[in-house]
Amino acid sequence: MASGKPSVGFVGLGAMGFGMATNLVKQGYPVKGYDVFAASVERFKAAGGIPAASLRDSAEQRQYYICMVASAPQVQDVLFNPETGILDVLPRGATFLLCSTVSSAYAQSVEKELKTRGRDDILFIDSPVSGGAGRAADGTLSIMAGGSDAALEKGKFLLQEMSDANKLYIVPGGIGAGSNMKMVHQVLAAIHIAGASEAMGFAARLGLDAHAAADAIVKSDAWTWMHENRSKRMLEEDWNPGASAMTIILKDVGIITSTARLHTFPTPLASSAEQLYLTSLVHGYGPKDDSSLVRMYTPDSLVSVKCTLSPEETARRLKMVTTLMQYTNIVAAAEAVAFARYLKVDMKQFFDLVINAAGGSKMFNTLGVAMGEGITTGEAAKGALRIDNIINELSRIVQEARDLYTPLHLATEALNQYILAQRRGWGGEAATSIIRVWES
Amino acid sequence: MASGKPSVGFVGLGAMGFGMATNLVKQGYPVKGYDVFAASVERFKAAGGIPAASLRDSAEQRQYYICMVASAPQVQDVLFNPETGILDVLPRGATFLLCSTVSSAYAQSVEKELKTRGRDDILFIDSPVSGGAGRAADGTLSIMAGGSDAALEKGKFLLQEMSDANKLYIVPGGIGAGSNMKMVHQVLAAIHIAGASEAMGFAARLGLDAHAAADAIVKSDAWTWMHENRSKRMLEEDWNPGASAMTIILKDVGIITSTARLHTFPTPLASSAEQLYLTSLVHGYGPKDDSSLVRMYTPDSLVSVKCTLSPEETARRLKMVTTLMQYTNIVAAAEAVAFARYLKVDMKQFFDLVINAAGGSKMFNTLGVAMGEGITTGEAAKGALRIDNIINELSRIVQEARDLYTPLHLATEALNQYILAQRRGWGGEAATSIIRVWES
Repeated sequence: MASGKPSVGFVGLGAMGFGMATNLVKQGYPVKGYDVFAASVERFKAAGGIPAASLRDSAEQRQYYICMVASAPQVQDVLFNPETGILDVLPRGATFLLCSTVSSAYAQSVEKELKTRGRDDILFIDSPVSGGAGRAADGTLSIMAGGSDAALEKGKFLLQEMSDANKLYIVPGGIGAGSNMKMVHQVLAAIHIAGASEAMGFAARLGLDAHAAADAIVKSDAWTWMHENRSKRMLEEDWNPGASAMTIILKDVGIITSTARLHTFPTPLASSAEQLYLTSLVHGYGPKDDSSLVRMYTPDSLVSVKCTLSPEETARRLKMVTTLMQYTNIVAAAEAVAFARYLKVDMKQFFDLVINAAGGSKMFNTLGVAMGEGITTGEAAKGALRIDNIINELSRIVQEARDLYTPLHLATEALNQYILAQRRGWGGEAATSIIRVWES
Repeated sequence: MASGKPSVGFVGLGAMGFGMATNLVKQGYPVKGYDVFAASVERFKAAGGIPAASLRDSAEQRQYYICMVASAPQVQDVLFNPETGILDVLPRGATFLLCSTVSSAYAQSVEKELKTRGRDDILFIDSPVSGGAGRAADGTLSIMAGGSDAALEKGKFLLQEMSDANKLYIVPGGIGAGSNMKMVHQVLAAIHIAGASEAMGFAARLGLDAHAAADAIVKSDAWTWMHENRSKRMLEEDWNPGASAMTIILKDVGIITSTARLHTFPTPLASSAEQLYLTSLVHGYGPKDDSSLVRMYTPDSLVSVKCTLSPEETARRLKMVTTLMQYTNIVAAAEAVAFARYLKVDMKQFFDLVINAAGGSKMFNTLGVAMGEGITTGEAAKGALRIDNIINELSRIVQEARDLYTPLHLATEALNQYILAQRRGWGGEAATSIIRVWES
């Protein structure tokens, strides 16, 4: 309190929330934290936080409250549970930051329910975050925040404490706009997390050294932020407890596909990824780190593969892996850009956000803007990256994977989109034209 | 020999081959059988067959030879292995029936290689079969046979011994035509085998009694031949040794998707099924019966589910299962019909074959001909089965499955095709119009 910084209540001390809360402690805020797991509260206390004895205890007399629980049902419980919810104890005029990833429809329902219950004095900000546990702890997250001007004005300093200076996006459109922005970002995150496992699983099946493959991807046109982040954990295979549990990305992708169904909008790649996440749950991987999805591609440890191939053959196979992933990432970029356009998301903010956050990929970062502006032909069409060429090359790689009995959930779905585009007469166009499959 | 029936050589005494060979024995043919597994040869001997000491021993002095090994590489080895292959010992003018399921491209390559090696005296018939082990043993298979007139004339009696009188299809077009016909039939088989697991897995997740669910499907518009056949084994969970191994249907679906890629033709449902089969292999289900695919949907035994729902809720949930499966089967029918049309398969034969063989479904049998003849609008469009309505209902069911964390690989892919159709302006058309997604 000596710092004069206002006291903050916090619920949800999981992988991300713990980092966010302790970062605020480090910045000098008195933070009272709660979690349903007592051990997390103890750990928070050890890190300098103030332990809350109950959920309501974390909210009493706090003018600022941050909610970082895992899902909409948990948010609902935190706010509105008649016995334990914070609604009755939050001071009048308090600022409530909802940082959990929820659907825009759910965020809007919270706004409505606050009003119905006579608590529209609460300054509500819909502000999902992205960037992983590391950036949460550093206070350099990407944050997508929407709400009333009054709420944003009052809560902005806290959003700034938690985010990188260049990565705080005040999204126009009120409550729901931040969640929509996060959702279209997560289209890329959900596909790329699965894609990281698909590429590394394929590499293992090809007999490639896992470290060499992971490095080659990072340095190639197949780069994704998620691959660079997840491949380390994939190599270590320390999945329990997970840094980012399978159930978290599964929840996020569920928001995407359920929103897409509401709009009757196709999201074939996100949907394939979701099916794969669900299948991993059947096999017990729900609580494990999402990089354990690689087990859906290969039963053995990645690092157990000892590469015995010639340098030439090694190079050829590495190139197959990166090409497969690159061409899949182009379709992922198109799916995300098309969905964002369809939802009338601010595209400039969207591109800036993705490029600087966990959804980024070499393909999105270089081709996404052209896709978003409908620049689907031109110079690129003259080069190698034409849809016809991609189909030829990808078909060959998919067949070689098939001969090794390697599943390729995303790449085969991506190939199907290219084939649909070709059949509609766009085979001679640049790869960016793949977005036309969604935009017709 | 007392019967005067000619002696026959046979290789491949697996689930299907054993039935086919012993049926010929019962019909009075002296059949000399070989298999790489000595136990199968012993079993064949016990059933009245003549055991062959080697592959070549099974072919020497045999004017008729039937090959029922599992895959093209095995056929290649049987015929052309320089040390052990039968090419050098098959008598001049012998009739060679290739009953294995292979791609038409491979069947044509055999014809070419026989010529190159100076053995075009061999009367070669490309004659894949369908119908399962039971019908193999009864001599009531469906057979799709193509070849020269001379070969068909000489071998027809054997094809007749193995097939039902109404289910022997002499397919015009020479070598490869029979295999193509089998392949488009297998589009349905491959999707329906996976679909049986998807529906039964979903039923279990919904808390439905497995026997009741299996029966309800059989009596509904969701009926498939494969469901009726596989659901019994799924309930018994006696998967080892399998009546039809996962690797067999995986091989068949690989022929479909690799041929589709050669033609740049989309087969999204068959491709999804293939990915699921491949994933089951990662988990060790390759040698098991293909009905064990249900383990990719639910970790527990189907019959362990004790239904505690009210009669009304039970009925509602059963209806969800059958509706989901019915709408998926419509897309499966469209994919198969569209591929058959694209390959210029004789459509009359194709419809007759499917309806009477293992690829049949209530949806194919009632809507397939209309799809094949391009009758996509009309009376049906006025009823409930419009694409718009299907999307609404299927979206609701998919969401309910999602809330239970149930994977639905096929249904979500089917829904995606309906959504693509709607976005192209065909939402108000009859369900059969879904074929337009492939035909554009």
